[in-house]
Amino acid sequence: MADSIDQDREALVLHQRLRGKLTISGKAKIKTLHDLALLYTPGVAKPCREIAQNKSLVYDLTMKGNTVAIVSDGSRVLGLGDIGPEAALPVMEGKALIMQQFAGIDAFPICLDTKDAEEIVRIVRAISPGFGAINLEDIETPKVFEIERRLTELLDIPVFHDDQHGTAMVTLAGLYNALKVTGKNETNKQKNGPNPYESLRIGIVGAGSAGCAIAKLLSAAGFKDLVVFDSQGAISQARSGMEDYKLELASFNTSNFTGTIDKFFGADVIISAARPGAIPLETIKAMKKPNIVFALANPIPEISLEEAKELGIEVFGTGRSDYPNQINNSLCFPGFLRALLDLRVKKITVEMKIAAAKAIADSVKNPTKDKIVPDVFDKKVVKNIGKMVKEAIKG
Amino acid sequence: MADSIDQDREALVLHQRLRGKLTISGKAKIKTLHDLALLYTPGVAKPCREIAQNKSLVYDLTMKGNTVAIVSDGSRVLGLGDIGPEAALPVMEGKALIMQQFAGIDAFPICLDTKDAEEIVRIVRAISPGFGAINLEDIETPKVFEIERRLTELLDIPVFHDDQHGTAMVTLAGLYNALKVTGKNETNKQKNGPNPYESLRIGIVGAGSAGCAIAKLLSAAGFKDLVVFDSQGAISQARSGMEDYKLELASFNTSNFTGTIDKFFGADVIISAARPGAIPLETIKAMKKPNIVFALANPIPEISLEEAKELGIEVFGTGRSDYPNQINNSLCFPGFLRALLDLRVKKITVEMKIAAAKAIADSVKNPTKDKIVPDVFDKKVVKNIGKMVKEAIKG
Repeated sequence: MADSIDQDREALVLHQRLRGKLTISGKAKIKTLHDLALLYTPGVAKPCREIAQNKSLVYDLTMKGNTVAIVSDGSRVLGLGDIGPEAALPVMEGKALIMQQFAGIDAFPICLDTKDAEEIVRIVRAISPGFGAINLEDIETPKVFEIERRLTELLDIPVFHDDQHGTAMVTLAGLYNALKVTGKNETNKQKNGPNPYESLRIGIVGAGSAGCAIAKLLSAAGFKDLVVFDSQGAISQARSGMEDYKLELASFNTSNFTGTIDKFFGADVIISAARPGAIPLETIKAMKKPNIVFALANPIPEISLEEAKELGIEVFGTGRSDYPNQINNSLCFPGFLRALLDLRVKKITVEMKIAAAKAIADSVKNPTKDKIVPDVFDKKVVKNIGKMVKEAIKG
Repeated sequence: MADSIDQDREALVLHQRLRGKLTISGKAKIKTLHDLALLYTPGVAKPCREIAQNKSLVYDLTMKGNTVAIVSDGSRVLGLGDIGPEAALPVMEGKALIMQQFAGIDAFPICLDTKDAEEIVRIVRAISPGFGAINLEDIETPKVFEIERRLTELLDIPVFHDDQHGTAMVTLAGLYNALKVTGKNETNKQKNGPNPYESLRIGIVGAGSAGCAIAKLLSAAGFKDLVVFDSQGAISQARSGMEDYKLELASFNTSNFTGTIDKFFGADVIISAARPGAIPLETIKAMKKPNIVFALANPIPEISLEEAKELGIEVFGTGRSDYPNQINNSLCFPGFLRALLDLRVKKITVEMKIAAAKAIADSVKNPTKDKIVPDVFDKKVVKNIGKMVKEAIKG
């Protein structure tokens, strides 16, 4: 706790000193009237006319192709809840900083003073001409699902929601290597033939952005027995009056499990993106060995490292940087957005996401129980994601 | 003409090479997990919470206080007309480049895919939390007047429309020095006592953004005999069915002149922001000597330098950098926006604009007929504007 107070103070002082973590600078200097005439009027009229005649030239003559809008309404920032657009800015600046330093992306925070989904869609559509991709950030669920769906339909640039898909891709990457190091991969392959994932029983705790996206990506990647838990228990087709996105989650629950998480026994894998204490110890104890648990709540995971050791969890991952196996979005979004921009992707597909997850997993040369994902500073990751997403597009 | 084709080609090649004139970079490096923990999660939660508790801290802990949005709908870009938001981007990037290099401002282009005034107002209001000031750019008149008025009402950050006020301030600056070097200042002072400007007869050709703003600023600065001409002739109270902004322009026409520009004789000053040929030679010939003419059409002025010499114009200013007396917005907007940000101005007042015009004029130590405004690269200008706007605020 003292550590965290010290870190808070240090972070605050650093933010006070910087007064903004980003700066916008020129890629060319204006030193003479001739420079001014080329970079501004009258010379600038020429690239303007070229783009007016052929809109696609905006990628060759402006910053659009390398620029990402990080859009938030501040309605669900970190674990802080609805703190508004001003208070969300430090997070968006930090995200932009990571995009630039890890992947050379020019990212700019757009913090919106409106929480209306329809208006957010209209605004993002209207500001999109200057951007090569949109990154939705820290917008509350389920509103953000609708915003993402509508914008993906409307825009001809990719719309990415990192809280969903970034988390899901890194989780899938970690799961690929966890299955490898526990040998579950091989065990299951023998039993089930071509798809080694079909018989794995997976519980997902939390049906927010992360939980939903993890369930959907795992389903698309071939996992067949996925039970998602929200505050009322397992989401199954037995439940009535569900919203569309919960109906989809229910369809992954092929065993039709209807109980609460404390009655969920025999799981191979538990992934939680909820809050400390969200995974009952009985559930862990009743897992099939060797077991895999990802406790992704931030900043305090559902289960501490000490508890995990006591419980004999075979592979344990969290969001914490001071524990092994940090399931951290920073492993994914810089490289994935870099790939989207470089490949001028118009719509993100599930194949691209699975390819990125594999690229992240493959970046760990010799995975072990304590090393299922790469280091966040591993420069290979961005390159590998680019290569494998490109291959996924080629098909 | 060959020159201009060469310059076009050079500008295009430069824009192709740069692929965007701006880049967004970090003011701090992320080299270790500790850096990441301070600049992003979990450390970033601390400044977020501080701002959530006290919104004004957003100026101390984020980039807001140094950041300007350059907003355009691409409806009236340079002399190119309605070329749309993508084609407007090179101009907005150029403007941002100048703001950064001349005044250290972080400016970001927001090019909007909507031409609806009401929607532009809603969007700019919604994106405003991340910005310290709004710069409206290349939006058609009279729509932009309404957008500026509404946003100024709604926002607690300044809303600046450079096409209007930047041009007006530099024009007033040039006029101050032109009156000084022609001695009209003194002549009129003797005749009229305290206000040396009252009896000066001034014609303003063009009632677009620039013409309107010049007329309004000159009126506020004490000039009393201002006749504004649009395509139908002098705007006067004799005309019926005028829009509000034209009613205001008519109120400056204290002589109640109702004819067309070719019948406008005996002017001391003619300022045109229209198109080549918009000032009839008869009107120039019939001016009171020593006369002052600003021909501000871009890139080709209403009157060429050769014509001006033949006609014996005493002080001649244009927008061209290769003629003397370049009435160039770049003399104003970097320093004026710098002052607005530094002084945390909420609403721009006419006193601030007059102060900035005086600061620009005073930056020329010894004005002559061929040197009524400073060089665009004169670093004193930004500082002088800051000093004098600060004094204007103090009162």
